[in-house]
Order: sequence, then C-alpha cells, then structure tokens
Amino acid sequence: MLILRSPLDMHVHLRQGDMLSLVAPHTAKDFAAAVVMPNLTPPVTSLEQILAYRTSIIDAVRHPFTPLMTLFFRAYSKPELEAAKPHIIGVKLYPAGMTTNSEAGLADMAEARATLSVMEELDIPLLIHGEGCGFVMDREAVFLPVVEDWARSFTGLRIILEHVTTRAAVELLDRFDNLFATITLHHLLITLDDVLGGLMRPHLFCKPVAKRPEDRDALRAAALDHPKAFFGSDTAPHPREAKEAPGCAAGIFSAPVALPALAGLFEELNGLDRLQAFVSDRACAAYGLVPLAREVRLERRAWTVPERIGSVVPYLAGQILNWQVVD
Amino acid sequence: MLILRSPLDMHVHLRQGDMLSLVAPHTAKDFAAAVVMPNLTPPVTSLEQILAYRTSIIDAVRHPFTPLMTLFFRAYSKPELEAAKPHIIGVKLYPAGMTTNSEAGLADMAEARATLSVMEELDIPLLIHGEGCGFVMDREAVFLPVVEDWARSFTGLRIILEHVTTRAAVELLDRFDNLFATITLHHLLITLDDVLGGLMRPHLFCKPVAKRPEDRDALRAAALDHPKAFFGSDTAPHPREAKEAPGCAAGIFSAPVALPALAGLFEELNGLDRLQAFVSDRACAAYGLVPLAREVRLERRAWTVPERIGSVVPYLAGQILNWQVVD
Repeated sequence: MLILRSPLDMHVHLRQGDMLSLVAPHTAKDFAAAVVMPNLTPPVTSLEQILAYRTSIIDAVRHPFTPLMTLFFRAYSKPELEAAKPHIIGVKLYPAGMTTNSEAGLADMAEARATLSVMEELDIPLLIHGEGCGFVMDREAVFLPVVEDWARSFTGLRIILEHVTTRAAVELLDRFDNLFATITLHHLLITLDDVLGGLMRPHLFCKPVAKRPEDRDALRAAALDHPKAFFGSDTAPHPREAKEAPGCAAGIFSAPVALPALAGLFEELNGLDRLQAFVSDRACAAYGLVPLAREVRLERRAWTVPERIGSVVPYLAGQILNWQVVD
Repeated sequence: MLILRSPLDMHVHLRQGDMLSLVAPHTAKDFAAAVVMPNLTPPVTSLEQILAYRTSIIDAVRHPFTPLMTLFFRAYSKPELEAAKPHIIGVKLYPAGMTTNSEAGLADMAEARATLSVMEELDIPLLIHGEGCGFVMDREAVFLPVVEDWARSFTGLRIILEHVTTRAAVELLDRFDNLFATITLHHLLITLDDVLGGLMRPHLFCKPVAKRPEDRDALRAAALDHPKAFFGSDTAPHPREAKEAPGCAAGIFSAPVALPALAGLFEELNGLDRLQAFVSDRACAAYGLVPLAREVRLERRAWTVPERIGSVVPYLAGQILNWQVVD
C-alpha cells in the first residue's frame, strides 16, 4: 500500500462541454487538486471566464477536488490582475501557435515585460509553454534564452517552465532560484523512438514532442531528486478520430493512469520513497500551497488500462500496470 | 516542354498481388526502368523468385518498362550469384528490422563479408538500407562506419547507399570512389518538422525518417550537383487504413507524382537543366547502364494530385503541381 498525501497534478487540460464531463472525473478521482490550463476556445482571459470555468469543473466531478485556475497570458492591467489574484494560481503564457488552441498566444516575447512586471509585483506565478519557432527538436532549446532573460530580469517572479523535455531545460533550474519545472508522465517514459522509431504512434504524439534518450534520463533524474521539479501530467484528451487521422492532434490523455504509472516507474527506478515529493511536496513548496487533507491510496495489484474511455484512447491503453488507485 | 531521356527510378517498392497491379503502372508510365526492391513476404532470395516477380511486374504494366531486379541480401554462394547475375542489377542489404518486411535482414554486419567478397569478384553492386540500431534520428549516422569499412575493404564493389537523409551521408560520397547514393523526392521536400512539427502527418511517415533542415539542404545540393547522387523514389505504398491507424506503417507512395514534383523543385532551385542528370545520367554512369530509348515529356501545366489512388493516398494528395507528364 502506498499513501500519497495531497497528490497534485500541476498541469491538466480539462477541456469544455462533454469532454470536460468525461475527463475531469479521472483527474478528480486521483488528485486532490490540479492546475487547470486556460487554452479553451476562446481562451480564459477574464475573471468571469475563470469563475464560470471553475464552476463547470466542480459540477463535473464527484470527488473533493480543487481546480487551481489559470489565466491565459495577454497584456493585463494591474487592476485586472489584482481582481483575479484570489482566484488563480498563475498566468499561463503560450507562444502563438505552439500547441492546441494557442493561436491567441504571444507572438513577440518582448511585449510580455510590462505584464510580467505587474505579476512580479503582485506575486503571481508565470507558467510557460516554453517553445520557440524553428525545427521541432530544437524548439524548447531555442526558447530557453527567453526564460533566462525573464528569470534574471524579474527575480521576484516565480516562473514555472511547463512540461520540460530536455536536459538543457533541467540544467537551467540550478541557475535561477525563481525557476521551476513540471515534468509529465509520458516524457519520463518515452522518447521520439517510441513515437516513430518503429511504427508511428499517434497516441504518443504530444507537444513538446518527446526528445532523445539522454533527455529522458535527465528528466528521470530530476523527477527523482530535483527539489524544483514536480509533476504536471499535461493530460490532454482528444477524441480518437482526431488522433487517428491524417492530421493527428497533439496530446496524450494520461489522467486515468498517471499515479499508477508513476508508482510503477518510481518503483523501477528505486525511488518510490520520493514519489510523495514529486507529486505534491515540491509543488507545494514552489507555489506556497498548503497541502490538502485528501489522501490517495495505491495498491500493488495489476490491472489492464482500458482501450477506450468514452471517445478517448487513454495513454497506455491495453497495457498492464502493477499499481492501482483504490477508493 | 521538358523531355527526359530514359528516366530511371533507382529505388521502388512495387509490392505483390493487387497492390502490385495498382501501383506498378504508375512507375511504368513515367519511368523507362526502375530498380525493384526485394523485401516481399517472403523476401526475394532465389533466381526462381526473381524471374516470377519480374514476370508479374511486366504483366501488370502497359508501358514499355524494364524492371531492374534485386536479390534480398543473405549468404549467397558464388554459383548462386553467378546464376543470378544476368537477371539482377544488384543485391539489397537490409539490417534486420529497420523497415517494412525487413525482419529477414542481416543482424550481424560482420557476417556479410564473405558474400560481399563474391559480389566484388562478380561485379554485382551492393544496395544498402543504411540504418543501424539506436535512436531514430541517429540511425543513418551510426551505420556510416559500416559503409566506410566495406567501401574501404572492397574497393571493387560498387556500393549504393539508398535513400540517404543526412549531410553526413552525402559527405561520405566524396571519400570513396566506389560509393554512390540515391535520394528520394520526399527527403528533398520535407524535414521532421513536416512530419510532426505541426499536426502529425502519417502520410509523411517513412523510414529513414526525414531529418533536419540542414540535412535537407545537403540533399538538395547533392541532387542538383553531385555526380554520384541520383534519384530513387523509395515509393512505398500502403493501404490508407494502414497509414491512418494507431500503428502507422512507414512509407510514402510517390510514384504518381515523382517526376512532376521533381521538375517543380528543380525549377524552384534554378536547376531544371540538371534534372536529366539526376533522374538518369548519373545512375547510368554508376551502374554502367545503357540509356533506354524511351523519352518522357512533361508540360508546365497545373494539375491536382488525386486524394486517393485505389486504396492508397498518394504523396502530395490534393496539392497542385505545376508540371505534368504528358503522353
């Protein structure tokens, strides 16, 4: 038996409408709270939208679950951010066009500075989808100088580099006290080899794309031991038809398997004792969160991941996992 | 009007059965001859299979077309190769498991030497799928030392490195007189960015996978000007269902668009005058082939590539090409 206190998924896409109803219960079942990304259509850019979205999430779940809301980055005034602050955990910045529903994102990073300065003043964290333009395998690396610049310019601003995929990004954590990172389950498990080294696997296609084996090694080491790296699944469901199509959408629906698969991986890496830190303690420290009262228990008992959950093929569909969450 | 004398596709997969009947006419329509790869089920490893396969190809096409047959590499005796020599243009070596129907390929490259020595003695060219084990983006690079070793050890053996994808492979051509390379259409056009930099595109998934922009630049330069680089489409049809599936098969069916798209690309690169060399002259020089009498004419007249050819989605489906082959 493994007991996780206040497990947190610090990066989820809960979508809207029917998809929200389908997927949000899977996150709420296994996590005490989760950071909810704002890349809806239209993006979440106002307090009214935050409150409405939060309500629709609460309405969709049965378990005691706290959605930690985010604003979609744009130029915000100080009064806007002051009003939003009690209701958000941070502001999420997307460079334009880098992933699903990020068309409204920022095209010129230089335009961010005024708002970043207000966020620093108000102590509102910045969450970043850290990819720039260019060749797909280099996009995270080419964005790191922007992160460095902001981390250096705004020393009072906490910056969370989301779903890091490279050794270079992990190494940057040691250079700036105010820089943190989330790591997904799938980037701990796969490399580009799994995506297209054999047959091509649309259900393993995500943004940022999985990188090289040495990058995965660095992510695993950080997940085990880095005090500023914590779990964010980036669970991102799409209907099966959108994945198995000539233009396959990016995203992996990992919420139903996240904790069991993490337990299996950490066990394999002889680090089961550090899972509590990865899925909760370090995130609480980074964000200044008080752990929630909820505990989630896992048993070492094999189960087979279903081939389909509603319209969505979950990550690790059909595979046998050795751990399962028990009520 | 562009007239190509004896256009040759030095690398095609014509498949078997119904698929052969569907695709072979497209190669035969636009090319005077083509090098036919032997990775059937079972692989083509005997003179009887060569002759039977050759007959089935001739039966499937209407145009005057010469299939240039290949044997699937295994340990062959000198009498076997002597008997086969009049009927083949070369022997194709697949490292085991690197692409479609290559399970019967060679697992230990050291075991090739005895047969390579006989091939050198009989002046039978070696065609190589040049990929080794390891991370998908490195597989061609890690195989190059094997190519170097063989090129150095068997100086009388002509070696054709098939469907090269990297700058490093192109550079190797200058180091060994007996080393040649084929280049596909799609590797001249796409990089990994096209495969999964935006949405994921199963119809652009091939082996070896498309590489980096600087690799494509090197391929383009070689296609234009390298005397030992010539065209081999690697046209490799799969039914649409096998491409748009959770495990997408590797291969791009480019035969119906190869010459028109090459004409468009060479025109764009201000190299239309060098297309004849790329699609015929250099291959004739490398293999010691006498050009065939057949000419193929292209007109600069726009057409739209069909979305489907039988069960197969062709390369560039739905796109408008500026050149077309005219009867």
